[in-house]
Amino acid sequence: MSKSVDFYFDFSSPYGYLASTRVDDVAARIGAAVHWRPFLLGAVFKLTGAGPLVSIPLKGDYTRHDWARGARRRGVPFRLPAHFPFGAVSASRAYYHVRHQDPAAAVRLAKALFHAAFGEGRDISPLETVAAVAEAAGFDSEDILAGMQSAAVKESLKLEVETAIARGVFGSPFFIVGEEGFWGDDRLDDAAAWLVAGGW
Amino acid sequence: MSKSVDFYFDFSSPYGYLASTRVDDVAARIGAAVHWRPFLLGAVFKLTGAGPLVSIPLKGDYTRHDWARGARRRGVPFRLPAHFPFGAVSASRAYYHVRHQDPAAAVRLAKALFHAAFGEGRDISPLETVAAVAEAAGFDSEDILAGMQSAAVKESLKLEVETAIARGVFGSPFFIVGEEGFWGDDRLDDAAAWLVAGGW
Repeated sequence: MSKSVDFYFDFSSPYGYLASTRVDDVAARIGAAVHWRPFLLGAVFKLTGAGPLVSIPLKGDYTRHDWARGARRRGVPFRLPAHFPFGAVSASRAYYHVRHQDPAAAVRLAKALFHAAFGEGRDISPLETVAAVAEAAGFDSEDILAGMQSAAVKESLKLEVETAIARGVFGSPFFIVGEEGFWGDDRLDDAAAWLVAGGW
Repeated sequence: MSKSVDFYFDFSSPYGYLASTRVDDVAARIGAAVHWRPFLLGAVFKLTGAGPLVSIPLKGDYTRHDWARGARRRGVPFRLPAHFPFGAVSASRAYYHVRHQDPAAAVRLAKALFHAAFGEGRDISPLETVAAVAEAAGFDSEDILAGMQSAAVKESLKLEVETAIARGVFGSPFFIVGEEGFWGDDRLDDAAAWLVAGGW
């Protein structure tokens, strides 16, 4: 399968969660593979000067409303964690740890983590919570705990964040097809259309 | 016609321009009226702490590319003015001056101004340029010049900006159907779908 979409997201991003519930379906319809690539928005915000949406006047109220509305439209559960935004470092490390062995399993883990965070409103920042969510999804929690603390996995995440920034990723979700970037859950269909049409 | 869409935009917003080239068509397809309501993003940015997109690292490069790409897809011309962002006060005042007498003519003027700014890349901040664009579009330039300087028109624009902020408008374009707001050119179809479905 030569067509593919890089799906960049932060585990603490509700728009990332919304995209995660349909990106595989959208890509499957056009015969494209999806590479799930969690990164850390905090590192990007240091460059762009942006901050969490919910703390911005006017925009914060809008986005809270828009997340719930988007979830209703897609027929997926939505519950904003009381502690938000939360740290996505552990979740991201767990993802890359699993991906080193089994990319498909890593996507299953990512979906379980996103569901825990925004389907159930849990704070998935602690290592222990990530391990518990992973265990409930069929993973070995001891292995996940060890993986999140391994130097190689930490380095993988750091490299992924640097690569994301080098490719111009500044928000979540962010889709890249070839050299072309599309920012936002509402641009997923554009990214797919670009891939099919070869540009415009 | 009871269904309607409030179309908020800043004349200095390329995404506002892109939306302006299709908002009437989208609304006509669902039998809705469009109320064109220019406002001033600068006033909103004082509240939200946001700034012009082009000056933000990563995001600035993306948006420049995305504007041109969006224009290509819609088949409309696009040229970013050398002096950008430019002041939209005079253009907005000219719009409200004409709207007091003839709302349909005001929309024609808005389209001519947007085309001058982003179709031709002209700086439409000076009063004289607004008057010249208006004259070329069939308006009386003396009347437009006087209108832009009238106290009543200045007050109208001030009130529109305050109303926009009170309604939660924080970006351009921004669509409101009933009490429901949708931010961004890429959400115009959602706004129309909401109006048809009555919500979700």
